[in-house]
Amino acid sequence: MEITKGFPATSQDKYQLNVTSIIKHAARNFGPQEIASRRIDGSMFYYTYAEAYNRMKKLATSLKEIGVQVGDRVGVLAWNSHENYEIYFGLPGMGAVMLLLNLRLTPPDLAYVIDHSGANFIIVDETLLPIAHAVAPLCKNIKGYIIITMPGKKLADVETTLENTYSYEDVIAEGSQDFEWPHMDETSAYAACYTTGTTGKPKGVYYSHRDVYLHSCTIGMSTEISPKDTYCQIVPMFHALGWGLSQAATMVGARLVFPGMYTLDSLEGLSKLIVDQKTTLSAGAPAIFMPLLDYIRGLDEKPDLRGARFLSGATEPPASMMKGFWDLTGVEIIHAYGATETTPLVTVNRIMPYVEKELNEDQKWELKKKQGLIVVGLDLKVVDAGGKELPKDGKTPGEVLIRGPWITAKYHDAPGSEAQFTMDGYWRSGDVGTLDENGYLKITDRLKDVIKSGGEWISSVDMENEIMSYSSVREAAVVGITHPKWEERPLALVILREGEENRTTADDIKNHLSKTFAKWQLPDEVLFVDEIPKTSVGKMDKKAIRKQYKRMYS
Amino acid sequence: MEITKGFPATSQDKYQLNVTSIIKHAARNFGPQEIASRRIDGSMFYYTYAEAYNRMKKLATSLKEIGVQVGDRVGVLAWNSHENYEIYFGLPGMGAVMLLLNLRLTPPDLAYVIDHSGANFIIVDETLLPIAHAVAPLCKNIKGYIIITMPGKKLADVETTLENTYSYEDVIAEGSQDFEWPHMDETSAYAACYTTGTTGKPKGVYYSHRDVYLHSCTIGMSTEISPKDTYCQIVPMFHALGWGLSQAATMVGARLVFPGMYTLDSLEGLSKLIVDQKTTLSAGAPAIFMPLLDYIRGLDEKPDLRGARFLSGATEPPASMMKGFWDLTGVEIIHAYGATETTPLVTVNRIMPYVEKELNEDQKWELKKKQGLIVVGLDLKVVDAGGKELPKDGKTPGEVLIRGPWITAKYHDAPGSEAQFTMDGYWRSGDVGTLDENGYLKITDRLKDVIKSGGEWISSVDMENEIMSYSSVREAAVVGITHPKWEERPLALVILREGEENRTTADDIKNHLSKTFAKWQLPDEVLFVDEIPKTSVGKMDKKAIRKQYKRMYS
Repeated sequence: MEITKGFPATSQDKYQLNVTSIIKHAARNFGPQEIASRRIDGSMFYYTYAEAYNRMKKLATSLKEIGVQVGDRVGVLAWNSHENYEIYFGLPGMGAVMLLLNLRLTPPDLAYVIDHSGANFIIVDETLLPIAHAVAPLCKNIKGYIIITMPGKKLADVETTLENTYSYEDVIAEGSQDFEWPHMDETSAYAACYTTGTTGKPKGVYYSHRDVYLHSCTIGMSTEISPKDTYCQIVPMFHALGWGLSQAATMVGARLVFPGMYTLDSLEGLSKLIVDQKTTLSAGAPAIFMPLLDYIRGLDEKPDLRGARFLSGATEPPASMMKGFWDLTGVEIIHAYGATETTPLVTVNRIMPYVEKELNEDQKWELKKKQGLIVVGLDLKVVDAGGKELPKDGKTPGEVLIRGPWITAKYHDAPGSEAQFTMDGYWRSGDVGTLDENGYLKITDRLKDVIKSGGEWISSVDMENEIMSYSSVREAAVVGITHPKWEERPLALVILREGEENRTTADDIKNHLSKTFAKWQLPDEVLFVDEIPKTSVGKMDKKAIRKQYKRMYS
Repeated sequence: MEITKGFPATSQDKYQLNVTSIIKHAARNFGPQEIASRRIDGSMFYYTYAEAYNRMKKLATSLKEIGVQVGDRVGVLAWNSHENYEIYFGLPGMGAVMLLLNLRLTPPDLAYVIDHSGANFIIVDETLLPIAHAVAPLCKNIKGYIIITMPGKKLADVETTLENTYSYEDVIAEGSQDFEWPHMDETSAYAACYTTGTTGKPKGVYYSHRDVYLHSCTIGMSTEISPKDTYCQIVPMFHALGWGLSQAATMVGARLVFPGMYTLDSLEGLSKLIVDQKTTLSAGAPAIFMPLLDYIRGLDEKPDLRGARFLSGATEPPASMMKGFWDLTGVEIIHAYGATETTPLVTVNRIMPYVEKELNEDQKWELKKKQGLIVVGLDLKVVDAGGKELPKDGKTPGEVLIRGPWITAKYHDAPGSEAQFTMDGYWRSGDVGTLDENGYLKITDRLKDVIKSGGEWISSVDMENEIMSYSSVREAAVVGITHPKWEERPLALVILREGEENRTTADDIKNHLSKTFAKWQLPDEVLFVDEIPKTSVGKMDKKAIRKQYKRMYS
């Protein structure tokens, strides 16, 4: 990426893009705006941007007082609370790096992340102390722990084996409101988030202040965020900056709602909160939105949420879910795509008016399932194995490469990971997808799961979906098995529905597939099995399947 | 402004913020979106983003071919046409600086601007050739002129005294679509605009690519710009980047409308265009919006423009105008404030929901007349003569100082202008205003017109408005006259309505003023005159008045 120098401008090029300027702006303009937070006991706590800002300043001064310095990394193991929101600005505002700790990692992985980052303090929710207790003995450099205690609870009453503990509320109480935020160099890290790939150790992405400022503008524009919005922070704040809408919402002074602690097993409270607080903007995954829709179906009076936009990420949103929200509440579910490495926004599915008018109702919902249009500011290309850009025809799949101001250029201190980046600055996403003539990206597979046969690619995900659309099939997995002539050939493992075991044949499945797949793409073997190997988080373990059948053609 | 360096991030800090990325993005995502352009004969021309993009690339290659190099300045003297839109991206995209030429400047001032910038080419509308003919003999470095000829007209048929002329259409025709945009250093100048203050020579502000990219995001968020918008470019594109909405609109793929040539004397065509094209987003001044409202009043069927936002700048918008638009069409008129030096957006008047609910209808319209809330990313303070920040009480006026990423840090090659900037990077706007407790800025005066009496300030504009609200007064001017004891004292010049000449006394005026002004603020003298000195553009010439009466107290 060669940079060309032109004629010098007269603008203020020393003025750095800082996340701190967002919260200073909010305090200046939106002081009385409300922030609602659901506490651990289900009760609601309300305060204002002005009050939150004062607490952020006190947090910053106290952190300095207890020994956190500019450039230090501080781990945060917390739910989506107003305290976490204060940490989001107060901690990086004083110049430290906020290390997002994913409470779903195993203790050894969490300890690895903490030690690898060099973090010296940890802020932890009292409810998450069991995790901290398991992790602490494995960490080397932690000087102290700041515990966000249950409402009204004193530090002395907290049961913990941790040493050098502080109460978050005491830390705030001892701080000063006279804190002067430093003007951080914009390339300095604001936060760090470690990826949790299925292979190897977690790898660190360190977001700069500049990244996050630009990303906030971009996701704000992409959602037409407004001061009239009520934004509910559903995405865990320990995932890639909680997807960045809380910062964008703060830029425009939207009303904020924090749901506190929730798990996928107990979504009733979260659903009630989203509806009761008249949420107009949010982001989450179908795993949340499906139960929310069920909750809404069960209400006698359906909430009128016309104008609301909920970004849905993580996986392709079912059309039935999007339709359900639209018909019952007026909420538009908008699919978006990104990754930890991309801060995370890469695409948003907005249907352009000139595209929409060419589509019938079914086609529209079909299009809304695609990952969407690349946001302004990023370069994205779909390339073949040789790195050559592929045609934008909506059907030629290749690996998705991304670069731009808020895309990571490397992993922090991770020798051997350089191959995930190209010479000209692109990050290899490991996702396989297509771009259509209107610019819509569709992710079809993970690169490692795509089947390479005779120089062409076959999408394992597409084939699985097609097999599962056959009425007698309950579940299916398709993997590529090494083949001496074709490099790989697809193998399908199929679990039939009860009672179908002796009625459906491999040829039935192949005949069904041949309606949408070319002859050379059809699996040579369709095996009926009782079980498909799964990983600990319930995903199909394709590595295990490939290992089990690797000698099939040799 | 001390910059603190923190822990290094892993992000792509080499990737530069470029205006070119906006148009590349539009070409990638919004190819079929429509652009409408009103030609010189009133007919409409329609094409698409994709077609515009191809012409931009051809423009860029051809400019290179005829000798324009990276870093060169190229003057543009043109109406708001689709060609000007092509120039907005094609010219700076190839690395040159687009020099905006205000067609209302005198030929000597235009020649000064052109020579001062070192421009070597000029692009000019055929209809503006009379200006170019007057300016050309005064310029030193111009190597050639590119003429945007009337639709269908050949260069040979254009009557001109200019030498080394090219036809814009020929230049485009000879270009190539294979152009590779350079990746410009973000601090490089994208465009230049010269201020036209009433004193001294025009001074050059050179906007960087970074400026303009950030400004586009900010004005886009401030107006909740959407792909569903139709944006009409009313603000002359030779003013501070046409106020930047065309770039923001391009970021989201809004439909674009260019009104071509219009003057304040012939607003019928412009009004019809705005209504016919179902404009949902625009920006302009009351000088445009008042006649537009009259036009709409005259229509049998009022257009339904609910959801539309028109930014109104230049001067305080009358409440009656804002109400008129709201009642007749559903358009929200939103006041915004800025200057050439600020790219230009500084404040936008958004009424926050928690503010609105405390106001009655009249108070709401009164608040909407203020300049509004400072946009995110900027620092703004109101200071006294000693530079001390004043309280945010909505009544203590001081000079408005602004700094931030898209605020100019100096004037280009303008020795002696350094005093307009503070040591810590603020630009002195020369405007006097107040900030209220909710963060709303109200400009009360120009610094040079404010009256400094006994260490306190009196707003000349407020006093003029108050005098003019008296029924027998037609016009009034208030200026500060040097006074040996009080530094200055206010003098009011008043033109009475016909028939009022012998019926209204100076005491009547003073009594009227004493209802809203303190006793010490009242003018010592109220003089009834037949005429108030005016400048060439019709503004009150306060300098001339002060000169005429300067010996009043000495």
